[in-house]
Amino acid sequence: MTQRKHLALALALAASLTSFGASAQSAFAKPEDAIKYRKAAFSLTAAHFGRIGAMAQGKVPFDAKLAADNAELVATLSHLPWAAFGEGTDQGDTKAKPEIWKQSAKFKELADKFQQEAGKLASAAKSGKEADVKTAFTATAGTCKSCHDDFRNK
Amino acid sequence: MTQRKHLALALALAASLTSFGASAQSAFAKPEDAIKYRKAAFSLTAAHFGRIGAMAQGKVPFDAKLAADNAELVATLSHLPWAAFGEGTDQGDTKAKPEIWKQSAKFKELADKFQQEAGKLASAAKSGKEADVKTAFTATAGTCKSCHDDFRNK
Repeated sequence: MTQRKHLALALALAASLTSFGASAQSAFAKPEDAIKYRKAAFSLTAAHFGRIGAMAQGKVPFDAKLAADNAELVATLSHLPWAAFGEGTDQGDTKAKPEIWKQSAKFKELADKFQQEAGKLASAAKSGKEADVKTAFTATAGTCKSCHDDFRNK
Repeated sequence: MTQRKHLALALALAASLTSFGASAQSAFAKPEDAIKYRKAAFSLTAAHFGRIGAMAQGKVPFDAKLAADNAELVATLSHLPWAAFGEGTDQGDTKAKPEIWKQSAKFKELADKFQQEAGKLASAAKSGKEADVKTAFTATAGTCKSCHDDFRNK
C-alpha cells in the first residue's frame, strides 16, 4: 500500500471514530498531545473498568449503583482514544504497535467491538443484575485483550 | 491541627467527592495509581475543555453539537479527580501543592465550584446559544485558574 493510501486510511479511521473533535487533524496540536490524550483515556478506562472487575470477580461485594456508575463512565470513555491514533502518532512514548496503522481496518473493528461491548456492559449494569454484569464484563474484557494482543507492545 | 485530624479530613474529602469508588481508600492500590489517575482525568478535561475554548475564543467556528458533546464530557470528567487526592498522594510525580491537604476545606470548595460551573457550561452548550457558551466557558476557566493558582505547582 502506498504512503498516501496509509495516510488516507489513518485519517478516515480517526475521523470516523470521533464526535468530540472538529476533525482528527485539528484536535491535537502535536503528535505527543495525541499520545498523552489516548493514554489518559485508557488509564481512566482501566481504573473504572477495574472497579467493575473487582465486583465481577468477587473481590469486593457487588454494588449495583457503583457498577452502573462505573459502567456508564467506561462506555463514555470507550469512544475517546481512537481519534488520537492519527498519522504521526506511531512514534514517541507509546506502546502502540505499527500494525495499528498497517491494519487499520482490523484495528477499527476491534475498537468498535470494544465500544459495543462497553455499551452492553452499561446496559447490563443499569439493570442491576449481578449475573448479567459478570457476563458483560467478561465479554468486554475479551475485547480489551484481543486488541492488546495484536496492537499493543508489552 | 494534629496528624490524625489531617488524615480524617483528607479521607472525608475524598469520600465526599466520589461516587465511582467503593471508597477512596480502596479505589487505588497505591498512591502512584491515584496520582496517575487524577493526572489522566485532568488531561482529558483540559483537552475537551480546550476544544470549547477554541470556539469560545473564535479560533475555530462555533459548532453547537461539538460544544455540547465536549461540555457534557467535561462535566462528567469534572467529578473524577478529587477522590484521587487521598492520604499519601502528596508525594511523587505530581504538581500538587501540600496546601491541598493543609487547606482541604478550601480545596474542596474550589473543586465543587469547578464541578458546578462545568455543569452550567454543559447546560449552556445544550441550549446551543454561542453567547451563553462563551460566558459559561469563561466562568469555568476562572475556577480552573483559581484552584491552579493556590494548589498546583508550576
